[in-house]
Parts: sequence; structure tokens; C-alpha cells
Amino acid sequence: MASFSCPVPYVIRCSTAKEGNDSNKLRYAKVNGAIIGSISEADLLSQSVRASRALVPSVAENGCFVKEDVRQKIPTKKQLVDPHRQGLIIEGGVGYRQTVVIRSYEVGPDKTATVESVMNLLQETALNHVWMSGLLSNGFGATHGMMRNNLIWVVSRMLVEVDHYPIWGEIVEIDTWVGASGKNGMRRDWLIRSQATGHVYARATSTWVMMNQQTRRLSKMPEEVRAEISPWFIEKQAIKEDAPEKISKLNDKAKYMNSDLKPKRSDLDMNHHVNNVKYLRWMLETIPDHVLESHQLSSIILEYRRECGSSDIVQSLCEPDEDGILRDVEMIEDSEISLLNGFSLASEILKGGLLGSFDKGTLRYTHLLQIEGEAKNEEIVRGRTTWKKKLTTIPFSTQ
Amino acid sequence: MASFSCPVPYVIRCSTAKEGNDSNKLRYAKVNGAIIGSISEADLLSQSVRASRALVPSVAENGCFVKEDVRQKIPTKKQLVDPHRQGLIIEGGVGYRQTVVIRSYEVGPDKTATVESVMNLLQETALNHVWMSGLLSNGFGATHGMMRNNLIWVVSRMLVEVDHYPIWGEIVEIDTWVGASGKNGMRRDWLIRSQATGHVYARATSTWVMMNQQTRRLSKMPEEVRAEISPWFIEKQAIKEDAPEKISKLNDKAKYMNSDLKPKRSDLDMNHHVNNVKYLRWMLETIPDHVLESHQLSSIILEYRRECGSSDIVQSLCEPDEDGILRDVEMIEDSEISLLNGFSLASEILKGGLLGSFDKGTLRYTHLLQIEGEAKNEEIVRGRTTWKKKLTTIPFSTQ
Repeated sequence: MASFSCPVPYVIRCSTAKEGNDSNKLRYAKVNGAIIGSISEADLLSQSVRASRALVPSVAENGCFVKEDVRQKIPTKKQLVDPHRQGLIIEGGVGYRQTVVIRSYEVGPDKTATVESVMNLLQETALNHVWMSGLLSNGFGATHGMMRNNLIWVVSRMLVEVDHYPIWGEIVEIDTWVGASGKNGMRRDWLIRSQATGHVYARATSTWVMMNQQTRRLSKMPEEVRAEISPWFIEKQAIKEDAPEKISKLNDKAKYMNSDLKPKRSDLDMNHHVNNVKYLRWMLETIPDHVLESHQLSSIILEYRRECGSSDIVQSLCEPDEDGILRDVEMIEDSEISLLNGFSLASEILKGGLLGSFDKGTLRYTHLLQIEGEAKNEEIVRGRTTWKKKLTTIPFSTQ
Repeated sequence: MASFSCPVPYVIRCSTAKEGNDSNKLRYAKVNGAIIGSISEADLLSQSVRASRALVPSVAENGCFVKEDVRQKIPTKKQLVDPHRQGLIIEGGVGYRQTVVIRSYEVGPDKTATVESVMNLLQETALNHVWMSGLLSNGFGATHGMMRNNLIWVVSRMLVEVDHYPIWGEIVEIDTWVGASGKNGMRRDWLIRSQATGHVYARATSTWVMMNQQTRRLSKMPEEVRAEISPWFIEKQAIKEDAPEKISKLNDKAKYMNSDLKPKRSDLDMNHHVNNVKYLRWMLETIPDHVLESHQLSSIILEYRRECGSSDIVQSLCEPDEDGILRDVEMIEDSEISLLNGFSLASEILKGGLLGSFDKGTLRYTHLLQIEGEAKNEEIVRGRTTWKKKLTTIPFSTQ
């Protein structure tokens, strides 16, 4: 019931936020202490363009128009099985399972699925869950009741943990389900399992809230919508978190910084906003190449703060996590290095010895994507990534 | 039996090329008048790394290794149906049909599949065809006989024609089959059809040759390999071409040029070379935004000349096709414009009148991707794109 590409600016923790006022040109407004904002006439115009376009048949065949609904065939009733999507309803009628074959273009140089592909598959199965429910209005996962109330889903947080990346041609089962998150939010979880062995390869959880499409304000969940979706809620959690990890805000002193990043047309999704995978790429491109070669991403947390549109210029900041222990392998690239306590050791000793015993090669980074502003930079996403040592290393450059 | 990401440098027209000599460090060599080249020890080393890696189990589960072959389950005999891939053998036992649902992340801002997604699906169905045939060795579409002869497939040419782009959630059927191309080459064709209406949305054809993985020279098709694949050959052609269109070579005087393009890690495929979709993006990013907004890509020809590795710096050149007629809408962006014959007209008249009657808004561009070299630039791909006017226009920027 959700999409990862945040269609609008939004608030992070605001489950009691009230519906917005009538202003549709607010630039920044405080709602229950949280910032939302950035709506312009161009935004509203583009929405009406999109709205009117939905009524326009989009394909001419031999002079006849074939309507979108004939081509999409979105179910109006709950479906238990979808043979084309390889999907079925599970968990006593409320969960969704899709069988997926990892495609040749979804894997990277090491022949394992990229984290971008994993994120894409999470988005796809979430939408297909809503598709099967019979609740889907045309759009990005909104239900009929949400459409009537002019509401859309916005994601506020994602946590993805990957123990093993599936390989090219491998068949995985992706389970997804939803639950309550506070009074007005929704949690969506996922499990990715190997079909051959049943082993869990990855887990994910996310939090979603509703926003009024016109006012860009967070909304309570209307009773009409609660009646639609709450029968689908279950308690089960893919990842048990005692307390969500706090992600500190980076500033310009961050160790790695890529600036002047511009969204391209191919980075935009159905909502004309930068898609989630592009966010991820911008974050991961700050990680040093030798880390990408030797390590694999084992977990990522994303805290969404604000949308990113096609005309924004973005900065990606990244800071290795030290925690008082030497974590960044880049620091041991030189043949000699001074430890914080003043010892000087050869890097080989560090690699095989101290570093190995301290953290077994696990690395952690804090990330921030922000919009480069004249007066003030605005946060788009905060992130945390954890990297564990690969079993085999494939060099990046083969030339 | 093929991949689009050219794993190696190769020749374009060379169906009678002989197997290479024993030199495995040639940088450029002439084979029957065609250039091949660019092999280094690092390349060979990376191949042996890949080769040895195939023997290494890549996933540890509860301390036990699960081998790649258990996870992939590549068939060793011909399969008629694959329920997970939604594939079946057609055309009297030699063609392949796969049913595909267009996923949410495969569409662009206008909710239709991107041309990159279309190209990805062509690659995927081609590989799945070989998968079903029982001939697939591990790798990028090579058969067992090819592996024994140390041969790999390289694509020399692709032509894709798209009349209609499928939309999000739409189900399409992709048919693919192979045929002979000259004495030593193979043709692979595709048709993409709407499942709901049966209308053909897109057609594609491609040409493939074999190359010795060590010597990097084109190879004749060994009898052993011919015996494997020729029973799959049929005459049917998706696109009838009287004579393949010649693509002229652009130089630095091209109207549009993007320089200093660097492959990123996420642009590399299983062979550690820049993937086909990245080539396409680099080409399309030279097209002016207003053309991308108002037009859709209706055909693309790609002529592959040389591989592109992760350390290459690339230049993308693009020249609008004039053919003596005003084709580039950018030329009519100004409110007044001088026609070639000296008339001066308001752009609105041009847009609605002259231009419309001349070419109905069809635009054509010639493309070149080349490696920026100190002494000499080397061609990677030549391309031609044709663009037709969209029925509806979605603005790029919504802010």
C-alpha cells in the first residue's frame, strides 16, 4: 500500500498531525512541530495535468483507442492468486507472496542482485499486494477511500537488512504484509527467502503516513480508509527493533561529499519525483571503491525528510562511523598508519589482526542527501549503511 | 543466446573471420579488414578470477555452502515450460515466449515503460530462451559447445522499433527466436505484443558473432556449436530490412556533445563491462529536454564497435538529422526563425504548419559514443534514433 518514491514533502514523526488548512501555496509550514512544505503552483498544475491525463486513452491502435483500464486490468475485488505476477494471498488472507526470478540485468559485476534491485522488488511487491487486495485506485498504491479523501501515501522510514544477495537466475519468494504504526500510520514489512533452500536472505520494514495531496499536510487516517485497510493489518514483524537507531545530521565537514548532483529524466518516477533507487545510488557513490569491492551492504536505514524534484541540485554527504574503533578500511590503505592511541603499525597487521578482531571487517557510514540551497540546505534523506566483508572479492576495474 | 552488454571488443561485419593467433596481448589487430582489439593481462586475469569463482560456493547458510548450481538450477535438457519465468517454447519447438508484467519501477514519468526497460526485457528473454534450450553454460548465453571452444557471443548490431510503449501493470508477451546470419553469425529477433489486444507494440532484430575469449578474435562457428544451435534456427524475421541503414561517423563538430562520462560501478554488468542500458542513457542524454518531453523514441539502431570498460572516459556525440528539411524542433524554439531559403516565419506557424506537413513531427538523430583517447578517440557504438510526436505531453519539471 505504498511506494518508495516519496511523491511529496513530508514529516517524519507526526502520527497525530491534523489535516492542513486551505492554503495551497505554503512554502513551509509547521504542523505539530514538524516541517512540511514546498508546494508551488507548478506542482498543482502538474497534478491536474496528470489527473486529466488519466482520462485520456493513451494508445491508438489501428485508429481505435485502448483505454488504460483495459490494458492494466486493476482488480476491483480481492484476488487470491495472480498467475502473471506469480502472486498469492497468504497469512490467512492478508499477506502477499510473490515468486520472483532474479533477472540478468538485476545483478551487478559479482552476479548477485544489486541492492537497487532488491529495493525495486520491495516496491513492486508492495504495490502488487495492494493490486491483489482490490483496493487499488490508479496511482501509487492509494486505496479508493484515500482517493476520495485526496490522500496519498508517503514513506517516512525504511530499514532493509540483507544477509545474502540472490544470484542471477535464482528464484526467491518475497512475502509482504502490513500492520498498524501508531494511530494514523502503517507499517509494511517484507521477507525475501530462497525458494530452493527456504533460507531468509533479507528482511525489511517501513513506515508510511497519509498526506493530503492538495494541502501537502499530513493527515489522520479517515475512518473510511481505516475500514478499508485495517482488516489487512497483522502484528507480525520482519525486524524487531527495540528502539529505532538515531541518525545524526551530517554537515559540510563530512569526510566524503559529492556535490552538484542533478536528477536526470530517467531518474524520475510516475510522480515526477526522483525515484528511491537514485537516492540510494547517490548515497552509495560516496563510498570508496575499495569498500564496494571488498564489502557488501548488509543493512540500510533511510529516513525521508523532503521530496526531491527534477530541478533540485543535490549534495550527498557521507561520514564513516568510528565509534572509537578504527572502522574505515581506507585508513589502513597506507603502509603505515598511526592509531588513535599513538601506536604505529603496518597495514597488513591491522588488516589481519587488530581490525579483524575488533569488528570482523564490518563498516558503518552515516549519510545525508540534501538540496543545495542559496540560504540553507534542505535535508532529503538521512541514511545509515552497514557493510560486511564479502566472501570473495571481484575487482572493480578489469582494464 | 546472447547478451547486449558487449563483453569484449569486436568486429562488425566479419562473418568469415578466422580464429585468432596465439597472441593474447594484442591491442589492435586486423582480421579480414575489421578492427578488433583491446585485450590486456588484467582482462585475462579477471577472466580467470571469474572462471575460478564459478567453482566457489557463494553463499554460506548456517555454516553450510549452497552451490550456485543449486541456487540457479540451469536446465541441462530442453524445457517446454518454465512456470517461474512464465516462459514456454513455441514456433514448433524452437521459439520462446515469455509473459511479462510491466513493473512499477520500469516506467518513467509518463507511466509507460522506458526504452531502457524494453531493452532489458529483450536481454532477459534472449537469455531465458537459451536457458530453456538446455544449451546454456554458466555465463552470458554461451552454449556448452561454445564453452568447450572458449567462445563467447558478441553483439554487432541491434535495431529496435517501438510503436507503443506498454504501461505500468500491463501484461505483454515477448516472443524471441534465432536464425542464421551469414555463415558464422546468428540473428535474434523479438516481438512484443499486448496480451489484452494482441497488438504488436515493438519489434527488434540483432546480429551476433562468436569470439574467442582468450585471443579476442572473431571465430568461425565450430561444427560442434553449429550442431547445437542450428536446429533452433528459423527464417522468420521480425523486421524486414532491404538494406541496413548506414550510420555516418560523427566528429567533434556534432551539435550536441557530452564529455567526460565515467562509468560507475552500478553501470557494470556480470562481465564487468558497461551495460547496454548505460550506452543508451549516454546517447539519450544528449537529446534536448523539450524533445524528450514532446516526442517518444520510435526506433533505435545500435552498431557496436568496441567494448567500454570501467576505466574508460566516454564522450557522447549527437547530431540532428536535417535531410534538407527542418527536423530539429529546437530550431523553431525562437519566436522568429530564418528558414534555409530565407523566409522568416513565426514559430507557431512552423510548428503547426510547415513542419507538420513536412514530417509530422518525426525527428532523427545520429549518435556516437567514443572513448576519449590522448592520441585518438575510439568508437564504442554508433547509433540512429527516430522520435515521433507523443499524443500527450508530460512536462519534465513539476517544480
